[in-house]
Amino acid sequence: RQDVHGGVGFFSVSATRRTILDVSTLPDSLVPHYQQTKTSSLLSLHWPQPPRNVLLMPKLHAPHVIVSAVEFGKHIYSNYPGLHLVFESHVANEIHEQFPFPIYTTAPGNAPAQLAKKIDLVTTMGGDGTILRAASLFSAHNTVPPILSFSMGTLGFLGEWKFEEYKRAFRECYMSGCSVSTEDLVAPHTLSALSADDSDVQPSDLPPPGEWTSVQGNGKCMGLSRTSKILLRNRLRVAIYDEDGRNINDSLLPTSTEAPEPRHPLLENGQTPSYLHAINEISIDRGPHPHLAILDIYINGHFLTEAVADGILISTPTGSTAYSLSAGGSIVHPLVKSLLITPISPRSLSFRPLVLPLRSKVVLKLSKRNRGRELPVSIDGKRRVSVKIGMEVRVEGEKLSRTADGWRGGVPCVIRASSSRGGRGGGIEGDEDDDSWVGGLNSLLKFNYPFGGDGGH
Amino acid sequence: RQDVHGGVGFFSVSATRRTILDVSTLPDSLVPHYQQTKTSSLLSLHWPQPPRNVLLMPKLHAPHVIVSAVEFGKHIYSNYPGLHLVFESHVANEIHEQFPFPIYTTAPGNAPAQLAKKIDLVTTMGGDGTILRAASLFSAHNTVPPILSFSMGTLGFLGEWKFEEYKRAFRECYMSGCSVSTEDLVAPHTLSALSADDSDVQPSDLPPPGEWTSVQGNGKCMGLSRTSKILLRNRLRVAIYDEDGRNINDSLLPTSTEAPEPRHPLLENGQTPSYLHAINEISIDRGPHPHLAILDIYINGHFLTEAVADGILISTPTGSTAYSLSAGGSIVHPLVKSLLITPISPRSLSFRPLVLPLRSKVVLKLSKRNRGRELPVSIDGKRRVSVKIGMEVRVEGEKLSRTADGWRGGVPCVIRASSSRGGRGGGIEGDEDDDSWVGGLNSLLKFNYPFGGDGGH
Amino acid sequence: RQDVHGGVGFFSVSATRRTILDVSTLPDSLVPHYQQTKTSSLLSLHWPQPPRNVLLMPKLHAPHVIVSAVEFGKHIYSNYPGLHLVFESHVANEIHEQFPFPIYTTAPGNAPAQLAKKIDLVTTMGGDGTILRAASLFSAHNTVPPILSFSMGTLGFLGEWKFEEYKRAFRECYMSGCSVSTEDLVAPHTLSALSADDSDVQPSDLPPPGEWTSVQGNGKCMGLSRTSKILLRNRLRVAIYDEDGRNINDSLLPTSTEAPEPRHPLLENGQTPSYLHAINEISIDRGPHPHLAILDIYINGHFLTEAVADGILISTPTGSTAYSLSAGGSIVHPLVKSLLITPISPRSLSFRPLVLPLRSKVVLKLSKRNRGRELPVSIDGKRRVSVKIGMEVRVEGEKLSRTADGWRGGVPCVIRASSSRGGRGGGIEGDEDDDSWVGGLNSLLKFNYPFGGDGGH
Amino acid sequence: RQDVHGGVGFFSVSATRRTILDVSTLPDSLVPHYQQTKTSSLLSLHWPQPPRNVLLMPKLHAPHVIVSAVEFGKHIYSNYPGLHLVFESHVANEIHEQFPFPIYTTAPGNAPAQLAKKIDLVTTMGGDGTILRAASLFSAHNTVPPILSFSMGTLGFLGEWKFEEYKRAFRECYMSGCSVSTEDLVAPHTLSALSADDSDVQPSDLPPPGEWTSVQGNGKCMGLSRTSKILLRNRLRVAIYDEDGRNINDSLLPTSTEAPEPRHPLLENGQTPSYLHAINEISIDRGPHPHLAILDIYINGHFLTEAVADGILISTPTGSTAYSLSAGGSIVHPLVKSLLITPISPRSLSFRPLVLPLRSKVVLKLSKRNRGRELPVSIDGKRRVSVKIGMEVRVEGEKLSRTADGWRGGVPCVIRASSSRGGRGGGIEGDEDDDSWVGGLNSLLKFNYPFGGDGGH
Ligand SMILES: NC(=O)C1=CN([C@@H]2O[C@H](COP(=O)(O)OP(=O)(O)OC[C@H]3O[C@@H](n4cnc5c(N)ncnc54)[C@H](O)[C@@H]3O)[C@@H](O)[C@H]2O)C=CC1
Ligand SMILES: NC(=O)C1=CN([C@@H]2O[C@H](COP(=O)(O)OP(=O)(O)OC[C@H]3O[C@@H](n4cnc5c(N)ncnc54)[C@H](O)[C@@H]3O)[C@@H](O)[C@H]2O)C=CC1
Ligand SMILES: NC(=O)C1=CN([C@@H]2O[C@H](COP(=O)(O)OP(=O)(O)OC[C@H]3O[C@@H](n4cnc5c(N)ncnc54)[C@H](O)[C@@H]3O)[C@@H](O)[C@H]2O)C=CC1
Ligand SMILES: NC(=O)C1=CN([C@@H]2O[C@H](COP(=O)(O)OP(=O)(O)OC[C@H]3O[C@@H](n4cnc5c(N)ncnc54)[C@H](O)[C@@H]3O)[C@@H](O)[C@H]2O)C=CC1
Repeated sequence: RQDVHGGVGFFSVSATRRTILDVSTLPDSLVPHYQQTKTSSLLSLHWPQPPRNVLLMPKLHAPHVIVSAVEFGKHIYSNYPGLHLVFESHVANEIHEQFPFPIYTTAPGNAPAQLAKKIDLVTTMGGDGTILRAASLFSAHNTVPPILSFSMGTLGFLGEWKFEEYKRAFRECYMSGCSVSTEDLVAPHTLSALSADDSDVQPSDLPPPGEWTSVQGNGKCMGLSRTSKILLRNRLRVAIYDEDGRNINDSLLPTSTEAPEPRHPLLENGQTPSYLHAINEISIDRGPHPHLAILDIYINGHFLTEAVADGILISTPTGSTAYSLSAGGSIVHPLVKSLLITPISPRSLSFRPLVLPLRSKVVLKLSKRNRGRELPVSIDGKRRVSVKIGMEVRVEGEKLSRTADGWRGGVPCVIRASSSRGGRGGGIEGDEDDDSWVGGLNSLLKFNYPFGGDGGH
Repeated sequence: RQDVHGGVGFFSVSATRRTILDVSTLPDSLVPHYQQTKTSSLLSLHWPQPPRNVLLMPKLHAPHVIVSAVEFGKHIYSNYPGLHLVFESHVANEIHEQFPFPIYTTAPGNAPAQLAKKIDLVTTMGGDGTILRAASLFSAHNTVPPILSFSMGTLGFLGEWKFEEYKRAFRECYMSGCSVSTEDLVAPHTLSALSADDSDVQPSDLPPPGEWTSVQGNGKCMGLSRTSKILLRNRLRVAIYDEDGRNINDSLLPTSTEAPEPRHPLLENGQTPSYLHAINEISIDRGPHPHLAILDIYINGHFLTEAVADGILISTPTGSTAYSLSAGGSIVHPLVKSLLITPISPRSLSFRPLVLPLRSKVVLKLSKRNRGRELPVSIDGKRRVSVKIGMEVRVEGEKLSRTADGWRGGVPCVIRASSSRGGRGGGIEGDEDDDSWVGGLNSLLKFNYPFGGDGGH
Repeated sequence: RQDVHGGVGFFSVSATRRTILDVSTLPDSLVPHYQQTKTSSLLSLHWPQPPRNVLLMPKLHAPHVIVSAVEFGKHIYSNYPGLHLVFESHVANEIHEQFPFPIYTTAPGNAPAQLAKKIDLVTTMGGDGTILRAASLFSAHNTVPPILSFSMGTLGFLGEWKFEEYKRAFRECYMSGCSVSTEDLVAPHTLSALSADDSDVQPSDLPPPGEWTSVQGNGKCMGLSRTSKILLRNRLRVAIYDEDGRNINDSLLPTSTEAPEPRHPLLENGQTPSYLHAINEISIDRGPHPHLAILDIYINGHFLTEAVADGILISTPTGSTAYSLSAGGSIVHPLVKSLLITPISPRSLSFRPLVLPLRSKVVLKLSKRNRGRELPVSIDGKRRVSVKIGMEVRVEGEKLSRTADGWRGGVPCVIRASSSRGGRGGGIEGDEDDDSWVGGLNSLLKFNYPFGGDGGH
Repeated sequence: RQDVHGGVGFFSVSATRRTILDVSTLPDSLVPHYQQTKTSSLLSLHWPQPPRNVLLMPKLHAPHVIVSAVEFGKHIYSNYPGLHLVFESHVANEIHEQFPFPIYTTAPGNAPAQLAKKIDLVTTMGGDGTILRAASLFSAHNTVPPILSFSMGTLGFLGEWKFEEYKRAFRECYMSGCSVSTEDLVAPHTLSALSADDSDVQPSDLPPPGEWTSVQGNGKCMGLSRTSKILLRNRLRVAIYDEDGRNINDSLLPTSTEAPEPRHPLLENGQTPSYLHAINEISIDRGPHPHLAILDIYINGHFLTEAVADGILISTPTGSTAYSLSAGGSIVHPLVKSLLITPISPRSLSFRPLVLPLRSKVVLKLSKRNRGRELPVSIDGKRRVSVKIGMEVRVEGEKLSRTADGWRGGVPCVIRASSSRGGRGGGIEGDEDDDSWVGGLNSLLKFNYPFGGDGGH
């Protein structure tokens, strides 16, 4: 398959085509359409043509997840011939020898910019942290590919699918929005896409394995396949300005990272991104300092308050179940268009968490009273830069916009239909509208967990 | 002026035309248009023609407010000749002798239905409770007239205007959205609309006193007057169903009321309203019972949790600063389209308040475990009915809808522009966008009030 | 045995000696000694002579508990010949036909006074509510007999023993503090006290069935038996004063009760008790009123604050896991000598719960701003009286005092040794010091219950 | 006066006796008696003989406080001839030229050990931080001298006296517990101790300026002077053990300090102190790490819970108004013998703060799940050491013990009598029992600060 992609480039090549190729050789990314439906508050995923470039992100420092990633990669290669597997470079190096076919990665020092240009679909294998890491790759971009997330071991709150379901989950997502003819569903290689034990899949809803655009093209489409449900998670747009009013977002590269990667530029040509995006929250805290942080907070240009606290969180509804929850914030459904201001251990009896309209402009300004200290800024739990007196952090909700093709913006997460989500919904009869959020509250956050000796009433 | 309104009807008439007339003789109510603007998140008020029927609601049991209401009424009568003053019947009886002109009220036993049909504009004089009472008159209706609220004495959180400003405030609201010619602004009776001490009003922004439609009609309109800013406060739609699935909203009439009125039917012909509307919240609590209430909560048909608590609140963002705040809920900006579920003293360590999308369908169901007790249901702090085992309370956010003429639904509250709101914003430079909410947090709720010996930093 | 107690009195007698006798015929109650030990923060129970009059309190309205109470009663009668079984009168009437021996109860209208005079030991069978009810019988008295509590079905937080353990638990408590000779331990009737399935009891720690004082007397005592561990739960002393400074505690009789009993006088001769005692808390709340309660709070004569709230709780550490917990209070260990002031849904952002020294004098005074309303006062969840404007509720911690014989005061609860408390401590190696409180936090209150999909990490 | 102390030693000497002498030349410290009184929950201070060595601690980095310290020092020198003024070495160096008499300080590298041996009385001039710093000097010792604290500018919660009151405050403290004859009270130099404007001091309660023991000795004592009121603030005893069970408290020296001092050994001979003491709290937190800290908590040898959080606080009641308050803890009166466990932003819905008996043994153990990170430990807000996996922090309340002479242990803080504490108690009629705590809640913490437009009710 090497020739398909036009040469090896600078990547090391092993004998049996255990090759790592450069993503730049791949076609540019597709932007799927996210369309409203009548029966659900979730959107449905429609590929304009089948996705081709899939980024596989296994959890860091977890050898057993690498094993599963290899299994998953082989499955995709065998069953979806048109697809290219992309890995982060440190993963690619670790893993490529186990694949008897070439895989793709980014050139050193260029990852986020390249990925944003090429990736059609992201699959994560790990916990919430891996999903956050995936989103952070697209942090400087307005468009994020759909994220299909598999939990490995313990369930996370953002994770949607169990890894055991990967065959069906991937197929459903790959096929989403495509009309297929019945005869294609019984093609021989289709069956091989399903292991014997995946017994709950009926032949009648099997996908065509490969390039369904041609199928669509020649008019054989006869039935609409089930579409994947998408939750567009709102992000926050964050920009940091220095005392002279200059945007210094280029200094927002991660300073704490467990990934063995260098600090890549976020945009292709080394430009300063106007905004970085957070999917959980942005926080400023006292970091290693023993003394309280002092921050002035403004909303839409009006002074709100001076916060004297361990720190301040500006959180999305998605992040309302993360740090903000720990700090005492309410739980906000991800479809509530809003942003949260939640203080961390404020030295006040009366600093109640706030929920503001999504498009509020929030500014955090380092007060002179901090006496020369610098305070670290984190995005989604990753330390980025430290702000000094006079600097400001400007935050605003990212707007979702409606186009003729559907909605744009946010992080498109592939949601597992509630009716098939075992162990969460607790046997509740799911309807289309269910976004699995209620189930997660109960099973993962132990929301309103009952008192008593037997764990029940 | 009696002849204008066509007779006295069944109302008592005193010698010197101190008459109470029936609202049914008045023209039907106007529905103003609420239009979006570029510079503000608030809407602007546009009267299709000048308002004619104004309901004046003074606070209950407050003689000094009655005195002010008389002053206000006389001012309106003298300066806005086309306007009719309407009072609740117990107020009308108490007050009419002080007016040398007829006033209007409803027939006994018919108030809410009649008022909904006739009132163009409501003015309240009192605290938050009076505003809630005003809204409750329109609780069974989809359309609520704009509410112009004056605080008398202590400021409330919902109240917007100080009574001292009543002349300017009323004029601004009355004129809102009208284009007027400059010459009209210096007409003699215009000046009489302003007392000598209202020194901050310049002749150039004076309103024409009366029927500005005619003015508009003959083409003299030359400059747009300033429009009043409107906040459409979302309400909740509440319906109660008995064990047999029958809507029993007709039993939702107030059972606790300090007003000397009988329990009026809510709809004109005695129909059961499909919904009642709450502007703050609906609550179910243990009332006089010593034992904890037990309620099953469902969201969009899914079982959420069994609440064992003093009670449960389903609140609007408007109500987030009322009971829900006391019960530990977050403060939610009224423009965040959402509803809150806040438990009251829950017997649980893990029942964190929730913020859900506005259109979520929440059902509260009385569990069998309550052993035969009835639990009182309150809407905006007024006890209504008691629910028994098997009954359900269904709650949903009221949808605001967009029409060609602007937005519909909610409770249209006339907001005081921040720049002129002394004592709240604390000298902050206001912009158009300000809805005075941040100022209210600080000055009224003492949000994040600083520690220390001198009340400051 | 009837002759022993000198006649039947006014009680109904059935043919086969299924008799109900008057407690007044019984010997006066013993006061055991509660002594400090080196190895435990709990006290140890020492009977001066074997207990003779045992009050058995089954849960109300629970037929299956009555069945167990009969079983328990028969066991005691057969194995502890010197003991008299006492029941509340409504229980006695319901149950006496099932006993082939006489039981005891109080004369109508005299229960608490009589019981306080006669009862050596109380055993409850039910949940926390039954323990509270037991304590409330001694609410007007300074001395409460030890309470041995059995949970029936679901565990409560105050309940200590599972009913299945009743034989061993009762024996241990009965024998506590007695020195017995080894030969007594193998007396034949001793063995009959234990059913065959009570397999974990070894002959060597069997008790002598009956009157161990004689045993002690004749010098055969050779080994100290294990003593029962006692937690003296501090109570609150409550007194209500009217506007003229008169103690009106006589009006504090329960107004809400599910027990089929009349309202008994609390003291023998109808005197007004100077204090009533609460074991959980005293609360004043808005009861059926829709408006907020307004209460002035004083500490040691100093004005603390004006509370505007649903209500106010003054709670013991014991009660810190009851209502106060629901209202947001901290969890306070019962050995911390303190009282808690916890507001219920206060209309304030800054009313944080307080923990004060046990002997603080707290006064709650009904503010004039309540406008004529009466507010119900509850003790341990039972509505008692309503306070009006001008009245005050005075509360103070009950002092435990040290005498030559050990400690006095509080409610002596027989605590189950941690090492044998299955299902709570979770396999932790117990030491003498453990009062089972930590175990209860985890197993019953689900304290810091871990997040995650599998109920663990 | 130089000869009195036997030479200059290694200290720099300026011409006009602007000398710094070594504290080692001073007599060893006195331990005053703290005795219970009938009318107060506070203790009264009794000097066995007049204090001689006073440590003056001005706030760091605050030039205006240095100015006041000089004024204060001169006042003491002029009016209390027997007294020696001691300063920390960096203060002594900065300040000594302004005194026309010798002052004392410690040898470099020996401060805490020397001070503990010599100081009779500490006076702080600054905020709560300065008091904490004073207490930390005695952190390795069981006995702390009484602390007389002056607030400079803004009031702190621990600070008791306004600096303007320094003459009376110092005199009252100096004289406390001494019986003096009337004639001594009119000695001439006594009057000079009071400035003309200190008009509220009557001659009859003036102190003898100098050595009142001699006065006591020759039988002239005729009236008891007013005694200073003492609050013994309980401390926590903290010890850190490494994986091998070795006490590593010697590594607990401050790592973050704003004082220009080197890290002094805490004990005289360089011994490892068995315990360090905290007056507010000990905390372990995630410090600069982005990930949550994971700590196992044990109480009295029993596993309580695994905390997953920003950190954990073990706090005294004194510290309940400091960090623990910010983290959501209850406010606990300093006389409640207890310690608090308060989580900082725990990733749990159900980790409610706990209040435990003072003598509970709490162990915090770094879980293996922290993956190799070290977590900083802070005592009273000062970073000390970092703990690694396997290490434990053992915490226990310091016991106050009763001796024939009164109470021992804790930090003896000189409390300002409530009746004379302007601006806090708000005109409340004070009694002896008042420890000014209620006043501080209201005026400093803005406890239950009322809502509303006018900052009042
Ligand atoms: N005290 C706290 O609760 C702190 C929380 N965090 C949170 O951790 C996030 C970073 O996550 P990791 O890199 O995995 O760090 P991590 O390994 O420290 O784990 C954070 C925990 O939060 C969970 N989590 C993350 N996002 C979530 C969401 N949206 N809803 C519910 N649970 C969520 C994860 O599953 C994990 O259990 C940050 O965005 C921040 O929200 C970070 C620091 C402190
Ligand atoms: N524990 C509590 O906090 C309770 C609160 N309430 C609230 O009282 C409301 C009824 O008000 P009233 O008839 O005046 O009763 P009320 O005379 O008991 O006063 C309630 C207080 O809430 C304030 N308030 C009302 N609506 C508000 C809002 N949206 N935002 C901020 N403050 C608000 C009022 O100004 C007043 O101070 C109910 O809708 C409920 O929200 C009712 C019962 C208990
Ligand atoms: N919102 C709330 O949480 C309310 C709580 N209560 C509490 O209920 C108590 C009366 O109990 P019941 O007669 O059984 O009424 P109940 O049948 O309403 O049950 C109250 C619940 O509290 C539990 N409970 C009682 N005392 C406790 C303690 N000391 N620690 C932990 N849990 C405890 C009981 O097991 C039961 O689950 C009152 O003293 C009050 O503390 C009463 C009213 C409301
Ligand atoms: N998020 C928070 O609230 C944090 C609080 N702290 C607290 O700061 C203390 C150290 O104080 P500083 O050196 O002055 O640091 P700092 O300059 O950071 O000030 C801490 C604040 O706490 C106040 N404070 C200290 N002890 C207090 C007490 N016992 N009661 C009431 N207020 C008190 C001080 O007046 C000051 O306003 C620590 O012991 C810790 O309790 C430390 C870090 C974070």
